[in-house]
Amino acid sequence: MKPPNPSFAADVAASFAQQPIMELIGAELSLVELGVVEITLPYRDDLTQQHGYLHAGVITTIADSAAGYAAYSLMPAGSEVLSVEFKVNLLRPAKGETFVARAVVIKAGRTLTVVRADVFSIAANGDRELVATMQGTMMCLLPNPDGSG
Amino acid sequence: MKPPNPSFAADVAASFAQQPIMELIGAELSLVELGVVEITLPYRDDLTQQHGYLHAGVITTIADSAAGYAAYSLMPAGSEVLSVEFKVNLLRPAKGETFVARAVVIKAGRTLTVVRADVFSIAANGDRELVATMQGTMMCLLPNPDGSG
Amino acid sequence: MKPPNPSFAADVAASFAQQPIMELIGAELSLVELGVVEITLPYRDDLTQQHGYLHAGVITTIADSAAGYAAYSLMPAGSEVLSVEFKVNLLRPAKGETFVARAVVIKAGRTLTVVRADVFSIAANGDRELVATMQGTMMCLLPNPDGSG
Amino acid sequence: MKPPNPSFAADVAASFAQQPIMELIGAELSLVELGVVEITLPYRDDLTQQHGYLHAGVITTIADSAAGYAAYSLMPAGSEVLSVEFKVNLLRPAKGETFVARAVVIKAGRTLTVVRADVFSIAANGDRELVATMQGTMMCLLPNPDGSG
Repeated sequence: MKPPNPSFAADVAASFAQQPIMELIGAELSLVELGVVEITLPYRDDLTQQHGYLHAGVITTIADSAAGYAAYSLMPAGSEVLSVEFKVNLLRPAKGETFVARAVVIKAGRTLTVVRADVFSIAANGDRELVATMQGTMMCLLPNPDGSG
Repeated sequence: MKPPNPSFAADVAASFAQQPIMELIGAELSLVELGVVEITLPYRDDLTQQHGYLHAGVITTIADSAAGYAAYSLMPAGSEVLSVEFKVNLLRPAKGETFVARAVVIKAGRTLTVVRADVFSIAANGDRELVATMQGTMMCLLPNPDGSG
Repeated sequence: MKPPNPSFAADVAASFAQQPIMELIGAELSLVELGVVEITLPYRDDLTQQHGYLHAGVITTIADSAAGYAAYSLMPAGSEVLSVEFKVNLLRPAKGETFVARAVVIKAGRTLTVVRADVFSIAANGDRELVATMQGTMMCLLPNPDGSG
Repeated sequence: MKPPNPSFAADVAASFAQQPIMELIGAELSLVELGVVEITLPYRDDLTQQHGYLHAGVITTIADSAAGYAAYSLMPAGSEVLSVEFKVNLLRPAKGETFVARAVVIKAGRTLTVVRADVFSIAANGDRELVATMQGTMMCLLPNPDGSG
């Protein structure tokens, strides 16, 4: 597929760098392909809930950004992306050394794009488990003044 | 209604104090009633996404904890609560001085409790706007060894 | 509020009359106000699942149409409405003599409208119980040829 | 994997045959494997909404039953299954000759099972398109009197 925005990878990276919350929690952009984005987050004690697992909101934070950027990678240059809605099922306690949110576009539309994001925990021995899965909708705000909102 | 756990307010507060993520983002427990919990979060630059609004994951973090504790307030003493799933609609850009997540139990069951959480932004002049709404399911893990999981 | 479409009530009724599925299941449009729509469905044995309760898909059918028309009531004349997504929590077994889906717009936007729909069962003695609740997104397709899609 | 219920395929078929709504809309059980169920529905004019496409509630009806039975196939003999919640994204207009809901278990738990169900339209020429995707939670009610509820 020819990307609608040839510089999508650089644009995703530039936008990610402008999300201060990612620095606060220590998340990094680890993969950008057309319609696929991964964000990696090392475990930290201060990201947890009362049982010592990653808080569901932190899981959602990396899943939502991965989903938004997966959608963004398929949007025309100069667009903005915003999250319309998402639904997250928490499948297992989020324990592990590292977490990876992998988002894949299911259906890209002119205005709305539907994305799935899986969040995996990776143990010290490399074992990978699915801890949460998100299904969400992202919206494209076109660069021109008639762009819908 | 007679609370199933007479010390629910103290137990919610004690559990909240054990969520390190709340300290990291600066969130505080601001109201605990039977089936209703509010969490308050002052705006901070390092909690935002690329447009300077609160990141959807941060909104979800306070909504999910509020929802979990609203459910927990109606559970038997000694239970644990965990998030099964939630769905969030983002309604407006999350700008404001302060944010409040207010969760209300819709249906409390023995195992599963359904909760709604609205997140409001509060402007410097006191104006209050609904920025997101969550509908989710929380699960009760009973204290006895036969508690379902 | 001044309705964007002065003939919204007639337009909702006309569109509802063009949904053959409503006739198949026996559903009727029972209330149309600005941003609020109710659909009523009498119990029938052939609408049930294996335990004799209304099938969750039937509950969703009336909730989705009520939600779509609640959104449609606030759209400009000549628009089309379509469902983007919805999430349904099933709260209690759907038993009763009659069911009512009541949808209320939470946030109306130019392109997207967020709606909540509650489905109640009504017993022979008039008792009313909430059996399901939906949170969903509806999209406006504007009448002009530049309408977003 | 050894099935927890050796007669799962017969039990799914028997339960499906007891869902009167399936006969009303003309849906058939077309595949039952461990953790995977498909339901097939031929297009019919009386299942549509105002634009002549399959109503989102009908799509949900087959997706929900497929999801429920995919979960049920992995439950102990004598269990009951019920839908806790589901979220559906509508991706394309549901037009076609036949529709297939294919549900696959993502995570089977003792009490809760998370399932994904994709609904495809199949055109006269055999073209297959994804028209909707569901992410939902199913609950197991165990046969013994201490089964959680």
